[in-house]
Amino acid sequence: MVDFKLYLDEQRQVVEQALHQYMLPEEGEFAGHVEAMRYSLFAGGKRVRPILCLAAGRCVSEDPGIDALLLPAACALECIHTYSLIHDDLPAMDNDELRRGQATCHTRFGEAEAILAGDGLLTYGFDLLSNPELPGPAAETRLLLIATLARAAGSLGMVGGQYLDIDSEEKEVPFELLKTIHRSKTGALITAAVSMGAIGGGAEQKQLRALTGYGNAVGLAFQIVDDLLDVTASTEQLGKTAGSDAEHGKATYPALFGVDKTRSLAKDAVDRALASIESFDNRAEPLRALAKYIFSRSR
Amino acid sequence: MVDFKLYLDEQRQVVEQALHQYMLPEEGEFAGHVEAMRYSLFAGGKRVRPILCLAAGRCVSEDPGIDALLLPAACALECIHTYSLIHDDLPAMDNDELRRGQATCHTRFGEAEAILAGDGLLTYGFDLLSNPELPGPAAETRLLLIATLARAAGSLGMVGGQYLDIDSEEKEVPFELLKTIHRSKTGALITAAVSMGAIGGGAEQKQLRALTGYGNAVGLAFQIVDDLLDVTASTEQLGKTAGSDAEHGKATYPALFGVDKTRSLAKDAVDRALASIESFDNRAEPLRALAKYIFSRSR
Repeated sequence: MVDFKLYLDEQRQVVEQALHQYMLPEEGEFAGHVEAMRYSLFAGGKRVRPILCLAAGRCVSEDPGIDALLLPAACALECIHTYSLIHDDLPAMDNDELRRGQATCHTRFGEAEAILAGDGLLTYGFDLLSNPELPGPAAETRLLLIATLARAAGSLGMVGGQYLDIDSEEKEVPFELLKTIHRSKTGALITAAVSMGAIGGGAEQKQLRALTGYGNAVGLAFQIVDDLLDVTASTEQLGKTAGSDAEHGKATYPALFGVDKTRSLAKDAVDRALASIESFDNRAEPLRALAKYIFSRSR
Repeated sequence: MVDFKLYLDEQRQVVEQALHQYMLPEEGEFAGHVEAMRYSLFAGGKRVRPILCLAAGRCVSEDPGIDALLLPAACALECIHTYSLIHDDLPAMDNDELRRGQATCHTRFGEAEAILAGDGLLTYGFDLLSNPELPGPAAETRLLLIATLARAAGSLGMVGGQYLDIDSEEKEVPFELLKTIHRSKTGALITAAVSMGAIGGGAEQKQLRALTGYGNAVGLAFQIVDDLLDVTASTEQLGKTAGSDAEHGKATYPALFGVDKTRSLAKDAVDRALASIESFDNRAEPLRALAKYIFSRSR
């Protein structure tokens, strides 16, 4: 893609607009609670998961209205990603004060409000996917989207991964466990984003398998690069406290392999992602460019 | 019903067995996390919400297999109720150390694990409702169950109510606000339990309206009685710290109206619940007995 930056900007705007359209308004008796949710949801996230979801849908669907059908699912992914950041930042978890260059939710609103903002966003993700007034694919397919998201975000996925991450702090972490943590904590939701786009777009089994393979590899690349940036980038560049992993005694790729080897492992993962969708036509170009973009952040 | 205690015991066993069947096993890499979820889920809850859900379903359905169809939804309600207790008990919220006569989740497992146990149970509720391998009504109906639960448990329901409750501590709370807190924090999920049973059982619109009215009134009665017990019962009787509301400067019915008037308001709510389902035949007897049982706890 010649103009990938333009594509990303456009896609971000599409997602941003949908989030504004679908998110609860800051009014009425729960306004203070909704304010905390919106504060974190509209804090300048990169919207990687919704964009992956939409791009995967367009890879398999001929329907010109596929974006509109998938936007509630795309927004649900971002709600659930945002909730996970709010809860991860809590004092009892990673105790981070800075996220995307601004005060974390609990630093701004207090701990109780942040826990509830996370709970609210998590629940709202499922509200968006099941709301009969919002666009979406047929009921059977919608159910499958919900099942995919619940499994990826839950105890055998993202929540379980965060448990392992916290549980492993200051411990010797073998490579196998590190892979499990990354696969569940970050990989599961990124894979789900791609799979949900594919499912919502009506993918055949073979296409779904290929795109899920792409999602797994891209999710791994994403986390490896995240580990790397925590070591190589400044707090200002990251928008969150740099060196936070080392400070918490967390297992990371650079801690296990050093910076150079970590970068080459990220490259391997991106190559696997590209190989998974080799057979797709040029409608998969955005997914290819996204995989390369993720790696480009590591340099 | 002559033998309501026997009915309740039987129903609890049905729910208990389904929870054991459907809950994640304590094994593999996430065993420690699942242990914390199971600790709170199997801590001797009364299973009021699942029992209400099943009873409402039997009120409107002739299908002898209706229980099996509704059990995943009934278990989802209990997962979400349990998550709300775990998060409400956290130090940043009500800071309670005792629940159902045993240490609260965070006292036993630590704060981070308790937050994650709650997140896991909340997400697992939606997993149960969408899992294609579990029994359930048709896809359209299932989606409606998910939408009903997500709305009731989320920011405009239970989570919003908890926000108002926390936000109102040590403040003068007008009666209107107290009603809103109760309706959202406790009432919404109880109403959802009844509505979900009715929807899953294929209720007609008129039946659904009547049962939702019953749910609203029973939910209110339940919370009024809970307020009352916090004042009149001992810690041993409650299984949680008595007098906790007053200690946190919480708005309650007894604080606003005194014990006698509060009891009579509970009675009024139960009467409204009974009136709502007056037109139902004797299949509604369990719901009638449940409403009376809730009031009987206040004496």
